[in-house]
Amino acid sequence: MKRKITLKQIAKELDVSISTVSKSLRNSLEIGEDTRLKVQAFAKFYNYKPNNIALSLKNRKTKTIGIIIPEIVHHFFSTVINGVEEVANENGYSVIICLSDDSFDKEVLNMEMLANGSIDGFIISLSKETQFKGDFHHITEVINQGMPVVMFDRVTNDILCDKVIIDDKSAAYEAVQSLIDKGRKKIALVTTVDYVSVGKLRTDGYTKALLDNDIAFNENLIIKIEDVDTCEIIISQLLEDRAIDAVFAVNELFAVTIIKTANKMGLRVPEDLAVIAFTDGIISKYSTPTITTVSQSGNKMGNKAAKMLIDRLELETEEGEDEEENYKTEVIETHLIERESTD
Amino acid sequence: MKRKITLKQIAKELDVSISTVSKSLRNSLEIGEDTRLKVQAFAKFYNYKPNNIALSLKNRKTKTIGIIIPEIVHHFFSTVINGVEEVANENGYSVIICLSDDSFDKEVLNMEMLANGSIDGFIISLSKETQFKGDFHHITEVINQGMPVVMFDRVTNDILCDKVIIDDKSAAYEAVQSLIDKGRKKIALVTTVDYVSVGKLRTDGYTKALLDNDIAFNENLIIKIEDVDTCEIIISQLLEDRAIDAVFAVNELFAVTIIKTANKMGLRVPEDLAVIAFTDGIISKYSTPTITTVSQSGNKMGNKAAKMLIDRLELETEEGEDEEENYKTEVIETHLIERESTD
Repeated sequence: MKRKITLKQIAKELDVSISTVSKSLRNSLEIGEDTRLKVQAFAKFYNYKPNNIALSLKNRKTKTIGIIIPEIVHHFFSTVINGVEEVANENGYSVIICLSDDSFDKEVLNMEMLANGSIDGFIISLSKETQFKGDFHHITEVINQGMPVVMFDRVTNDILCDKVIIDDKSAAYEAVQSLIDKGRKKIALVTTVDYVSVGKLRTDGYTKALLDNDIAFNENLIIKIEDVDTCEIIISQLLEDRAIDAVFAVNELFAVTIIKTANKMGLRVPEDLAVIAFTDGIISKYSTPTITTVSQSGNKMGNKAAKMLIDRLELETEEGEDEEENYKTEVIETHLIERESTD
Repeated sequence: MKRKITLKQIAKELDVSISTVSKSLRNSLEIGEDTRLKVQAFAKFYNYKPNNIALSLKNRKTKTIGIIIPEIVHHFFSTVINGVEEVANENGYSVIICLSDDSFDKEVLNMEMLANGSIDGFIISLSKETQFKGDFHHITEVINQGMPVVMFDRVTNDILCDKVIIDDKSAAYEAVQSLIDKGRKKIALVTTVDYVSVGKLRTDGYTKALLDNDIAFNENLIIKIEDVDTCEIIISQLLEDRAIDAVFAVNELFAVTIIKTANKMGLRVPEDLAVIAFTDGIISKYSTPTITTVSQSGNKMGNKAAKMLIDRLELETEEGEDEEENYKTEVIETHLIERESTD
């Protein structure tokens, strides 16, 4: 038995990237002719068949939705999955989940695998690496072959498809404004070092709230960090210098670390330092003090994404072929959940 | 185009359970002849093809592993998935995840869907409902057709296959013994109302530790609850009566709720009440005080489960056919992570 060769094995054998193999097999002119022909010849020799979605779509409905998310140990993505499951199951669909682990290669491989007859359509949140590279050919390819894709949270303007997002800029603006309303003036933004679309939007919202309230913007108060240890070091320095009286953190882990850092220094939250976190997860609910958060409504996002995908799938089935594309971007409302970490 | 009919649709049309349809299609004598023939005729009319795993296994290796877990908003299962991904990816395998949502029907449907050519083998943790019903025909079926299955955490003795477990009884024993060593004598066990195998084992470990230390067993201190609200009510009553000086909780949410309840009453943790939780998740690490836990090592469990499955898959490929079955049960060691909630 000659075992079916995978994209990954072809890439390894020819010492090129998975993206190069994938593009060569689609005869993309982005790849030089030599490489392209070499990849195609190799794939043919090993009997590799690129997926032919259009064909499989005609012959078979799987009644299955594929979700691709960057990571799983993350309360937000878990709630989105639950949201998708709810609407999918109500409509008789099953759900398959794959993780990209924030890797471009894994995202490409997982899409390739799922598109090959296992599912009818995708719900996807882009990996960090994909957003950084700006390479979306694997998604374009799937859409061009007639398989619907709904993107959520980490989306790109470079792809035309249905999307579900929250208004990250407004949400950040509202959070920072609420701190200002409580008399805070030295507000730090603690965010991650990355290339994810939502990071920039939240920074924009933070900056705009300061400007609208005539508070001088201080770039030293925008803190981009990788991990909680760095978070503790920088925050304790700022607290020692009395440089901050509030923090807006882009995730719960940073927020709870900041609270513990302040406590260690004998400072009180919220009296000496007010804290708000983006993403409403279980840490915020159960920490002491409980943490005020911006609710991202992962569940609603999942509900909406599933509904958009299923609507498109059922429409195609009924009409016999694709409707004129009238892609929509749905914005899920966020709201501030006030708890003990702000007064 | 006549759309492929699903198990679920057949069940609905004939007003029987999914399990009945599934068993009838395998011609199980558990189902009366009338029903069996009716289901078979209906399925045939709609061109339903039960999966023929043996055939698809011969023709094709997907290099994909299917995981079925009860729920996703649960740190333990997330870490198991990460553990499976690590070993799978190192060995060139992809991973697909499905949720049973603790429902027997969803477990059966998901197995049916994945077994139909999408994957080479299963890693599964049983749903509560499956454990309660004691109906494992869907798993037996898959194994009989030659597709390997590795069970983890929530397993059953009724199925012969590879398994990865922790020694729940010893782990509970060790936790309770550590409380006794610290001079605690009035120790409550807070557990869930359910039919999951691990619950009973943990209760056994708790009971044995008390007996070995000549501490009278008091059944009022075994508290079986559904939710955190009930937890708060019962614990505050016990604290008021000074009936407890320590608690062993089977999950983090109960543990953190108990700590908050004690704090509200002006009691201190650990001075007035020591607390240990099963499952080491993020709440325990970030709550105030931090919580002593029994580490379940989900990551190691995932690593081991993936290794066992891949070993079996590769062996089959090399030998051309199945090896003599020599199923193993691997026990992953737990250890106590001492933090601030015990002195």
